[in-house]
Formats: sequence, C-alpha cells, structure tokens
Amino acid sequence: MIIVMRHDATAKQIADVVARVEARGLRVNLSRGEERTLIGVIGDDRPIDRTQFEAIDGVEKTVPILKPYKLVSREMHPQDTLVPLDGLKVGAERIAIIAGPCSVESREQLLETAFAVKEAGAIALRGGAFKPRTSPYSFQGMGEKGLELLAEAREATGLPVVTEAMSPEQVGLVSRYADVIQIGARNMQNYALLNTAGESGRTILLKRGMMSTIEELLMSAEYIMAQGNSRVILCERGIRTFEKYTRNTTDINAIPVIKQMTHLPVVLDPSHGTGKWEYVIPVARAGIAAGADGLIVEVHCHPEEALSDGGQSLRPEKFSQLVTEVKKIAEAIGRS
Amino acid sequence: MIIVMRHDATAKQIADVVARVEARGLRVNLSRGEERTLIGVIGDDRPIDRTQFEAIDGVEKTVPILKPYKLVSREMHPQDTLVPLDGLKVGAERIAIIAGPCSVESREQLLETAFAVKEAGAIALRGGAFKPRTSPYSFQGMGEKGLELLAEAREATGLPVVTEAMSPEQVGLVSRYADVIQIGARNMQNYALLNTAGESGRTILLKRGMMSTIEELLMSAEYIMAQGNSRVILCERGIRTFEKYTRNTTDINAIPVIKQMTHLPVVLDPSHGTGKWEYVIPVARAGIAAGADGLIVEVHCHPEEALSDGGQSLRPEKFSQLVTEVKKIAEAIGRS
Amino acid sequence: MIIVMRHDATAKQIADVVARVEARGLRVNLSRGEERTLIGVIGDDRPIDRTQFEAIDGVEKTVPILKPYKLVSREMHPQDTLVPLDGLKVGAERIAIIAGPCSVESREQLLETAFAVKEAGAIALRGGAFKPRTSPYSFQGMGEKGLELLAEAREATGLPVVTEAMSPEQVGLVSRYADVIQIGARNMQNYALLNTAGESGRTILLKRGMMSTIEELLMSAEYIMAQGNSRVILCERGIRTFEKYTRNTTDINAIPVIKQMTHLPVVLDPSHGTGKWEYVIPVARAGIAAGADGLIVEVHCHPEEALSDGGQSLRPEKFSQLVTEVKKIAEAIGRS
Amino acid sequence: MIIVMRHDATAKQIADVVARVEARGLRVNLSRGEERTLIGVIGDDRPIDRTQFEAIDGVEKTVPILKPYKLVSREMHPQDTLVPLDGLKVGAERIAIIAGPCSVESREQLLETAFAVKEAGAIALRGGAFKPRTSPYSFQGMGEKGLELLAEAREATGLPVVTEAMSPEQVGLVSRYADVIQIGARNMQNYALLNTAGESGRTILLKRGMMSTIEELLMSAEYIMAQGNSRVILCERGIRTFEKYTRNTTDINAIPVIKQMTHLPVVLDPSHGTGKWEYVIPVARAGIAAGADGLIVEVHCHPEEALSDGGQSLRPEKFSQLVTEVKKIAEAIGRS
Repeated sequence: MIIVMRHDATAKQIADVVARVEARGLRVNLSRGEERTLIGVIGDDRPIDRTQFEAIDGVEKTVPILKPYKLVSREMHPQDTLVPLDGLKVGAERIAIIAGPCSVESREQLLETAFAVKEAGAIALRGGAFKPRTSPYSFQGMGEKGLELLAEAREATGLPVVTEAMSPEQVGLVSRYADVIQIGARNMQNYALLNTAGESGRTILLKRGMMSTIEELLMSAEYIMAQGNSRVILCERGIRTFEKYTRNTTDINAIPVIKQMTHLPVVLDPSHGTGKWEYVIPVARAGIAAGADGLIVEVHCHPEEALSDGGQSLRPEKFSQLVTEVKKIAEAIGRS
Repeated sequence: MIIVMRHDATAKQIADVVARVEARGLRVNLSRGEERTLIGVIGDDRPIDRTQFEAIDGVEKTVPILKPYKLVSREMHPQDTLVPLDGLKVGAERIAIIAGPCSVESREQLLETAFAVKEAGAIALRGGAFKPRTSPYSFQGMGEKGLELLAEAREATGLPVVTEAMSPEQVGLVSRYADVIQIGARNMQNYALLNTAGESGRTILLKRGMMSTIEELLMSAEYIMAQGNSRVILCERGIRTFEKYTRNTTDINAIPVIKQMTHLPVVLDPSHGTGKWEYVIPVARAGIAAGADGLIVEVHCHPEEALSDGGQSLRPEKFSQLVTEVKKIAEAIGRS
Repeated sequence: MIIVMRHDATAKQIADVVARVEARGLRVNLSRGEERTLIGVIGDDRPIDRTQFEAIDGVEKTVPILKPYKLVSREMHPQDTLVPLDGLKVGAERIAIIAGPCSVESREQLLETAFAVKEAGAIALRGGAFKPRTSPYSFQGMGEKGLELLAEAREATGLPVVTEAMSPEQVGLVSRYADVIQIGARNMQNYALLNTAGESGRTILLKRGMMSTIEELLMSAEYIMAQGNSRVILCERGIRTFEKYTRNTTDINAIPVIKQMTHLPVVLDPSHGTGKWEYVIPVARAGIAAGADGLIVEVHCHPEEALSDGGQSLRPEKFSQLVTEVKKIAEAIGRS
Repeated sequence: MIIVMRHDATAKQIADVVARVEARGLRVNLSRGEERTLIGVIGDDRPIDRTQFEAIDGVEKTVPILKPYKLVSREMHPQDTLVPLDGLKVGAERIAIIAGPCSVESREQLLETAFAVKEAGAIALRGGAFKPRTSPYSFQGMGEKGLELLAEAREATGLPVVTEAMSPEQVGLVSRYADVIQIGARNMQNYALLNTAGESGRTILLKRGMMSTIEELLMSAEYIMAQGNSRVILCERGIRTFEKYTRNTTDINAIPVIKQMTHLPVVLDPSHGTGKWEYVIPVARAGIAAGADGLIVEVHCHPEEALSDGGQSLRPEKFSQLVTEVKKIAEAIGRS
C-alpha cells in the first residue's frame, strides 16, 4: 500500500508512521514530493487492515496496490482452469449452456423442461429446490422433495444438475443430489456457506452479488479455493444500478475483466441480467461474444404459470433459438 | 397490481389475462384508455409472482400497488413499537447510543473501551466476535472467546451487549452471551439466519444491506416478525453508490422514510455510513436531527492498532464529544 | 397515470382528486380495491406534472403509465429509421464503424490516424475539436483549428467527419465543417444545445449521459425530433455504477431495449464503456452481437502521447483486429 | 501520480516509463516491491493525462495522488470564504435559507409565495424562469417575463433573487435581473456555461450533478474560480442511486466532506434531495446538523396546481415550521 501523508504532515508524524510500518516487519520507500510525502510499504501488507494507518495524525489516506487475492489470480496460475462437468470441461473451447426452470415446481414441470432443454442443446439442468425470496410470503421452494425430483430428472435425461444451497447446513444435503452447488447472488458474502462449500470439494457455481464488485467476487472465490477446492465457476448475473428499465444491468465488461484477472471459467446469466425474456437472447449472444465460457438460462414450459421469475423465463422454442444463435457467435470467435 | 397491456393488444389477449386473474380467485377492474388498456387486480395479489403475467402475449408490464410487507407496516400497527434494551426502550423519547469496538480483540482492549463508552454515555456495548471479512486472510474475529469477553464486559460495566451472528448455527451460541443479536449488512437477505433469529425471540438489530432498498430491509424485518418476534431494531448504515470519497453514502432520507413506513425503531451507524472518523460526528448529529432513535458507533482506544475498521473508529474523547453534541440536537427536537 | 390513494383516504379526498383530474379535461377510472382506491387517469396526461397530485391530501403516490416520448417511439413509427451517412445508411444491414482519436491534436496525428482507420475499414472519422474536460487545466481541444484539420482529413481520406459541439453557439460553426454533430454524454440534457442541434437539420450522434436512464436518452432525442430533425443516431457509452474497475459499466442491455422502444439506430462506444484498451475488442464484439447498428471507437497511433483518453485508445493494428472480429460477429447474426 | 507496473514488467519497460516521465520535466521515485515496481511521479503532474501511461507496455495502472483542484482547495486557502448575499454573508454563523417556487408561474403566484417565505424567515427568493425539463412537452418556464416578475418580487419584498441560467447566452440576461445565478444539476459540467458564469463576476449557486462526485463538483467550481470569480456557493441536492423510494438520495456525508476539502460555503436542497414534501423538514434539519451553511427549499402556496415539482414543494405553513425547527438545530450547534 501507499500511505499518503497530509500536505502539512510534520517530520515527526512521518517518522511515526514509518516506525509503525517497520514494527510490522515491513519496509518503506519514502518519496518526498512537492506537495505530499508518500510512504510506500514494501512487503506483503495484505493481512494488515490498512485503515489503521488512516487513524494516525498526519495521514491523509492509504491506497492499496497489491491485489488482495492470490489463489484465484491469473498471475499465480497463468493457464485457464477447466472445471469438469460430466463429460464437458467448463472453460474449454466448447460453450457450456446450463438451463432449466427458476424453481422446481412439480415432477411434470421439471421433466418436461429438462427434456426440452436437453433436446435444444443444454449440457446441464438448473432448478432451485431452496429459493431465497425477498418476501416470506412467496413460494420458498420444494426443499428436499425438489432435490429428489432433480435427481430423477438427471436419471431420465442424463443431464448433470446445478442447484442452490442457501446455508452451510444445506450443503451436505444438496451435495447428495446435485453435481454442482450454486451459491446465489444474495449469499456471495455468506462466509460460513463459502467455507462449507469449499470443504465439500464439489463443483461450485458462484454468482456475483448484485451489489458486489468484481474484486469482491474474486475474494469470495478465494474463500472457496482457500479450502482446497478449485472447482469454481464464476457467474456474472447483472448488477444493481440506477437504470430500472431492466431488472439488473448486465455488466458485460466483467466478462473480459474476469478472464484477465483470474484463471477460473466464467458464465453469464442473461435471465437475471435483464429480467425480461425479450432481451435474454441478444444479451446471451453478447456474453459469448465477449468471451464467456457459458450461459445459465431460465427456461419454463409455461412461464405464465411459473411460481417465480416467469417474466424472464424463455419458452423451450425460444431457448432452442438461443442455442442456435449462440452457436453461430461461438463459431465466429473460434469456439463451439 | 396493475397489468398494463401493450398498445396493440387484442381483445382476445385482454380476455385471456382477465381469465387468468380470475382463475386465481381475484377480481379485475378494466380501464380502456386512449393508448393502453389497464387491468387492475383487486384482492390480495401479494402471494402471486407478478412476473408471470409479463410472460403472456400482449402484456407490456405489471406495476405493483400494494406494499409487500404487513407485520412491519405502520398501516397495520400505527403506534411506535418500543424495543426494550435493559432498562431503556429503544424508540422512545431518549436516544439510544450503542458503542464499542468493531472487533473484540483482547480482554484489555474490550474492557478499556467498554468503560470509556459507558462513561461517555453509551447505553449498550457493541463488539464483534464473529467478523464477516471480504478476505479469508483478514482477522475473522475471536469467536466464542470473544463472546466470553463481551459477557465479562457486561458484568463489569452493566452495559447490555450487541454482537453479530453470521449463520443460523451461531444464533444459539450468540444468544447465550448477548442481549441483542446483530444481523450484518452482508446477511440482510440470509433468510435461514433471519428465520432462526426470529425463532430465537431475542432482540435483533437488523442492518440494511449496502445495496438493499428500504423496502427490502422491511421485507427482511418481516421475515423476523413472521416468526413471532417483534423485537426488531432497524439500522441504516450507508449504501453503496458511485461516490467513492466516503466508504458508503449515508442514506439520511431513509430515516424519515422508515419512521413513516414502519412502527419499528431505527438507529443510524455513522461509522460505516462514512468510513472515516472525521465525518462520524457531523453525520451522527444529522441522524438524530432526521429523527433516528439512536446511534451505533465504533469506538476504539487505539484505532491505529485496530484489527478492523481503524480508520472509522472514534477515540473515546471524540466519542464523548459526539455524545455531548448529539444530546444538544436531541433536545432541539424535543428528545433527550 | 394511476393515482394511488392512501389506505385511509376519505371519500371526500377521493372526490376531490377526481374533480381535479376532470377539471383538466381528462376522465377517470375508479377502482376500489380491498386496501386501496386507485384513480386511473384516461386521456393524454403527459403535459401535466403528475407530482401535483402527490401534494393533495389522501394521495399516496402516482404511477406513470404512458411512455413520455412520442416521435422517437417505435409504437408511432414501427419501421427502422435509417440515417444516411455519406453513402451508407446507419441502421441498415451493414455495421457502421466510426473511429478516430479522442482529440484532434495536430495535423500529423489526425491524418496518420485517419488513413489508418480508413484502411482498417472505418466508414467515418471521429475526433474532438472542442473537448469537455473535468479540469480547467486539462487540454481543452484545438477549437476551430481542429475543425479545419478534420475537414482536411475528410478531403484527404473521403471519410465523413463526426465531431462534438458543446454549446448552442458552436453548432453553426461545427456544422460548417462536420457531417455529424456529436452531443456528448455531459450535454445529453443541455436542452438549449438539443434544440439548436434539432434546428440545424444536421445528423446528430446523441450520447447517453453517464447518469441518464434509457428513457431520458429517448426524451433528449425527442427534443431533437420535436424540431423536425429525425437524423438522430443514439449512442450507448457506459453508465456510472459502483463498479470502479472499469471507467464505466457498458449497459449492454440498453442495446436491445433501445432497438425495441425506438426506431432510431443505436451505436456502442466500447472505448468509454470500458475505459481500458484491453477490453475494447471483446465489448465491441458484444455490442454487435447484442444488435447494435455500429460502433464508435477511439484510435490513436501513439496512445502513450495522447492528450486525452490514451488509456482507452486502440493502436491501429488493434483496431484492424477489432474490425476483423466484429465482421465475423456481424455475419453470424446476418449482418455485414 | 503513482504508476504501478505489472508483476512481469521488464527492466526495459520500467526504464521506458521512467524516461517518458522525465521527458515531461518531472522526476521519479522508484520503489521495487516484492510483487510490483512502483514509479512515483514527483512534481505537478496534473496537466498530464495520466491514462497515457496506461497505454504503455508493462504498465498495470496509474493512481492519482494530488488533488486535481487548487483554487477551491482549503489547503490553498484555509479560511472560510464568506459569500455576500445582500446584507448577509453565506458561510458565516447565520444559516442562509433561500426559498420560493420551483418555477415562476404568474405574478400572483410569485408574489404570494415571496411574501410568505419572507415572513417565515427566508433571506432570499428562488424561482425558475428558464426550466430544464426532461420532456420537450413540459412547461419550459416563462423566460424573460419570469425574470421581470422576479425583479418585481425583489422590489416588493426586499429579498435578493436566485434564478437559473441554462446556457452561456442566458447569463447576461439573467445577470440583469438576478442577484445569484444558479447553475443547475444537469449543467454542472456545461463548461461553456461555467466559464461565462465565472466571467460574469456574479455570485453563483452551483448545484451538484445528480451523478457527479464531490470531486467533480469541486472541479466545476474550479472552472468558475479560474475566471477570477470566487463568489461561489456549492449546493448538495441529492444523487442518483439504486434507491427509488425517494427521488434522489441526499448525500449527507457530502456536507462535512465539502467543508473539509474546500473553503467555499455549501447549502443543502432537501426538496430535490428527497423529492417528497413529507421528508423535506427532517432532512433540512439533518443538513444543518451536519454543518451546511444554508438551505434552498421549494415552497408553493398551492402545490396541487404547481406546473413543476408540486410533490416536493412545501406549503408556506410547513415552510414556517421548517424555519422554526432548523433555527433550534442551528442554535444547538452554535449557529443562528
């Protein structure tokens, strides 16, 4: 970090800060400019809470320099990590399209959708059994019964299953039924859940929080990897901004940024990213064009009866069109 | 809700929507305007996911009308709820000032700070034993040992204790030591935690998420109240915006809005709201002037050595000044 | 609009609101729900400031229903408007790529860049002669001398010229030299400038303000069209959000939304949208994949010496790569 | 600035950057850390576009250190600047309350309101003759006729007049009638207007843009001061965030931040800051408690008939209550 001293900082204040840095086993580089003295901290200062220094007389501010993550960093690990998902490898040349209903609602609904998305070209089935809902009066998911139906759908279709765990104690249960454990946007900084997910050794689909920076997303992935689990798929799903015409603002910049900063694969969720089914296909195309390794898409055979997210769910025929169009984009950039 | 039909919706499409509304046991009010037909839904449509209708041909959008919360609503419960905290009642005339370190770091640190804030006029002690940290490499709190120290500080000073639980399984443990269970900003939509906190029957201090709307804060309080627990204190602690000069943007508007919409008391956290100790006192004064029922303030005897949030912690003498100034503001608006 | 009455509104208050609506020559649709009475206003209520009604006792809020724009609306004008730019038509099948330096800095710089972008496949040249800069101490552009150089570059290369006017009095001057007048993000709601630009009859490239909603962008286009000028090209150039890793957040959702809501063509500016040259190519690809009609890209032969926006400018060889990659994406979606 | 080199930057790349810095007449401080080399630039680097360096191979990013403003900075001018407004000095002990209608609508409306706000304790009259409106179909103000009415109101009440100029060519006209020229939020970065306002020598009320940072506000004030005009009053009026329950989010933190960073006075606009009359009084109290030097408040005798901003305008009796309550807060913090 750089510690920026106030323009009127005294020699004694500067010496005091230097002494405190050195007392922590780090070295300093002192730069006396015309208007400010800067104290550069040399060594790994990441474990130190840098705001400590902002409490010292004469300090104006501190500026972090080192990236706070290590294991997820491409600097530490330059090659792409490929995360196995059934036969496929997420992050490799072939685009991974995961699809299915927002919520598991019934056996019929799930199986009908599962067969439809398989036929259209999906490589995995998504569906929520435990649903985080803003309102306690909304449908909260079918729970373990939903997990059983997902397992049945896998059996029937051969598609691996992606489903969400909302708390540490659900991780074991979900692991028994699912191939990939999803950590939802609202739980991206639920650290107990991240730790348990890391310990589980299962493949984790980690969604970016709607209020989280890219760096915070990577730090949450770092929690999982710090438990020895590198099977992490990142997911951009839109962020909250002042623009309210769409439910969220898809942060398309995040795709190339994440690919540059980390070796982990990243997929885009155009359903939550837009919140309206009419925009899902163009934004899905954009995600692949920007370099995403895959998509996770909400599909429902009867969205007008969906218990959640009906407005952003594609009907199977539209999903089929999405797969066709995305395939052309993938080929245009040398993927498949 | 209002269902707004597209300008070119056909009579058949309109009839189809009406039929679907009625099939759900609700009635409609049809309004044919010059450019649009509107279908007003009459009855309690809150349990229905309104985006279903957005999936129907001919529908342009839906607009919610009813407030999605009930138990927390001032409409349902016009009188202020006063939440007992030791002898005091939060929400009554007297301003409640809760203070203490961000983290419990050691016996000496905690006791020194506890006595200092008590002397200055705090009515409760805050301090984190379990700390949600962005980085897995940062100090994660002392855990149960920290809770024991908090209990010792209560014993020594007589101040009731406010501390955070980060997951459902910590609620029981924290309840054994603390008077008030804090649910932090990152966990505001951790529904498993909200439910467990509700069941505990303990007083809950619920912090607004840094990118959650006021309505979402109230919905999370609704989760707690839906478990039969009305001892909920809301907390505005700043939101994330484009302005980065301060750590967060204190949403001062939220204070009168919350007082109008709900009967629950609300306190302001000017420490997180600003992120810099220099701005804590003026923003604390502003919070009380705007009608907050109290404050929760980070205080540390040696912020330059704090393991977390040193830059936004007040030294005891500054905290004492805060209490003095806030008292004058309280009196100016007829409180104490 | 819908006027939502408070739950405790009296019959007299409701009657008062109805009378006020009718006094303005509009009709009402009254809907008495279980919790609220709604007053639907029938007729064109756009000229009325709807917040008037929020000042009346018993009114909780108002909700707009009609879209506030007319001339730019696709409802009014279902076919795409194609804006001529030299031989090409912006909005038609062929993607329009406009490129050039942020600022005109010298004859050599401009001509070198102009020839380079032409060779790579650009169809128009951009370059700023008047520069809106945050600091009064930054380079403010070459002024009229810059316009002369742009005219010379057009002469030399045959590329039409796009350049910014920052105030109403510059519109005439800029019109004498430029083919397209750009209205920059900071001036999107400079209404005197919009009116003058409308009156000029020239083709206008209207950039979305970094703080402006899509609807506000369309309203600003409405100002121009209300002066009888329908040669308007809209431009998405990124919005300001909490994410600071990139300079702005490219709102990729805005592309299909704008195409749906209006008949005007839309181009994407991936240079400002990301602020870092490394991300310009993938985001340019994404823009075309999402349906944009073109791109406007900053290119500089020596970005390390650029007087503005060096960090987001592509070198000519990178720009050439962009054109090649974008062409493949265009073909994948049936354009060229 | 600090230039942060990539972790894999070569010695040659570092030497190249150093050479480029020195070629600009500046010196460097080289700091070789364990993971990164940092190049500190010594000297006044403000006129250089620092993103140039981000275009050089081996550079990861640049970090600005110096504040970009000078004349408005408290470092350069530690004492408070007091801006004369009739007899009063804005920025001195006495709180300055400016009030009046959003728009001048008629002689009767203006005079009635002017007398009412004077009687309640306002020290200046506000009222818009030129109105920046999102829609071309909304009331655009009375223009020069409105200015004449404002002059008449000043004559009748003795209150100095604050009114907006929207473009450079209106500055001369507005100066003939008004005591203070307001630059509105949408025009905060209209640099031609800022320059003309600076040249006019008139007192300027500069409103923060709804999505402008505090630093950008100060840079716009720097434009005015760079023309030799130091009669600048800053105005916080709420920023645009994801929270939509209120029209804007009052950035209360900005008050102490601005007071610390600059010597110019700052007032708060609680009417635009909240957008709803019910919240204007508590937020006005908060502004003064946070240290604002004054308020600018929308007042209308008949808000239910206001041509603009009816929903956020106070009736005179409410405004009178505001003045009474604010006076108590002012006294509680030692002002009047």
